[in-house]
Amino acid sequence: MGMKLYDLAGAESNRRFSPFCWRIKLALAHKGLEVETIPWRFSDKPLIAQYKWERVPVLVDDNRGVVDSWTIANYLEDTYGDRPSLFGGGAGRALARFYNQWSDSVLHPAISRFVILDVFNHLDARDREYFRSSREARIGMTLEEYSAGRETRLAAFRQSLEPLRQTVSAQPFLGGETPLYPDYVVFGGFQWARAISPLVLLEAADPVNAWRERLLRAFDGLAIEAPGYW
Amino acid sequence: MGMKLYDLAGAESNRRFSPFCWRIKLALAHKGLEVETIPWRFSDKPLIAQYKWERVPVLVDDNRGVVDSWTIANYLEDTYGDRPSLFGGGAGRALARFYNQWSDSVLHPAISRFVILDVFNHLDARDREYFRSSREARIGMTLEEYSAGRETRLAAFRQSLEPLRQTVSAQPFLGGETPLYPDYVVFGGFQWARAISPLVLLEAADPVNAWRERLLRAFDGLAIEAPGYW
Repeated sequence: MGMKLYDLAGAESNRRFSPFCWRIKLALAHKGLEVETIPWRFSDKPLIAQYKWERVPVLVDDNRGVVDSWTIANYLEDTYGDRPSLFGGGAGRALARFYNQWSDSVLHPAISRFVILDVFNHLDARDREYFRSSREARIGMTLEEYSAGRETRLAAFRQSLEPLRQTVSAQPFLGGETPLYPDYVVFGGFQWARAISPLVLLEAADPVNAWRERLLRAFDGLAIEAPGYW
Repeated sequence: MGMKLYDLAGAESNRRFSPFCWRIKLALAHKGLEVETIPWRFSDKPLIAQYKWERVPVLVDDNRGVVDSWTIANYLEDTYGDRPSLFGGGAGRALARFYNQWSDSVLHPAISRFVILDVFNHLDARDREYFRSSREARIGMTLEEYSAGRETRLAAFRQSLEPLRQTVSAQPFLGGETPLYPDYVVFGGFQWARAISPLVLLEAADPVNAWRERLLRAFDGLAIEAPGYW
């Protein structure tokens, strides 16, 4: 039995926008593993309840459910050790964690403020009330208030990417000459934005954008062929 | 002939506060290499002019000068490959670069604003005019204006360390069970602050502080035995 991945989708079933799911889709491609992705909406929690989890990605490999993107990446590395390594060894695995936490606590909150209203507008109708009420409770204001004046924040956002910019100016990928899991982790944030929002977060000439383009085209264009705006 | 390291000092020759020099002193200890550190002040540029460089660290190994902390770390890794690895392999070396750039472009500017006046006050008299004029030209205000109200920025600074906090809550070091060069890079910023300023940047119970304490005590207390405030 092949692998299945529950993958967050909007009203259009092929609009897949979860940054965490993108990490895993690229990790699976890196390992050369085929997967059937199953479009999943926030209201589909019963579909994954058997895995004792309420979010995606959920990977089902031969009837075993694995949840949480970091756990899934480690599961893939350990289970498919004969395939290309996602971490490049023990040091690489340890050093990958900071990229994961930087993305979760710095990059994603910044991107969220640019795209959250676009996310809402792309959701399946049955997801909208849940999304609005849960997110507005978290951020303490309406989605519209949170997003207001987003263009004025673009310059500061781009400036905040300086460590990423300097790194991918010095080498093609965070992982060096070829990408590793940290590339997929950070790229996931940009792929989320691309999938859901017409707001172009990066200037065309930005080395961060050149790095993003390299990943968009990796694995026969897996990421660039997915529906997206830029 | 042994190794020598030109190491930034204050008016007191044993007050060594350069974050970049601390990276290298810990990297040398990691490699088990002995070094003679030579106190160097900003006005001592003629001492390193033969190496075509104006900043420290400058490492002199058997009459060969190596400049720039990242270059020195790579030189040590390549030249002393039989000693404990600073990067844990090729992937680790590539993944170390983002830590370097994050420290240089995010962590250090933030710390600078807390400690710059303390740096000034600890400098050798002949360094003060150079330091004040060069730094004030860069920041576009006086050192006093730049530092004003620093306590009000502490909470935001501590919050900005969340990726580091999450990482060292999940594993003892950025490098995993034992430290690697990225640990020394990030730690260098805190050791700079400790050496030069009584302002306590981290709460005692912060996991980042626990990680810092582990590094303070590494290599027989190399870092904690150096003059410092906290």
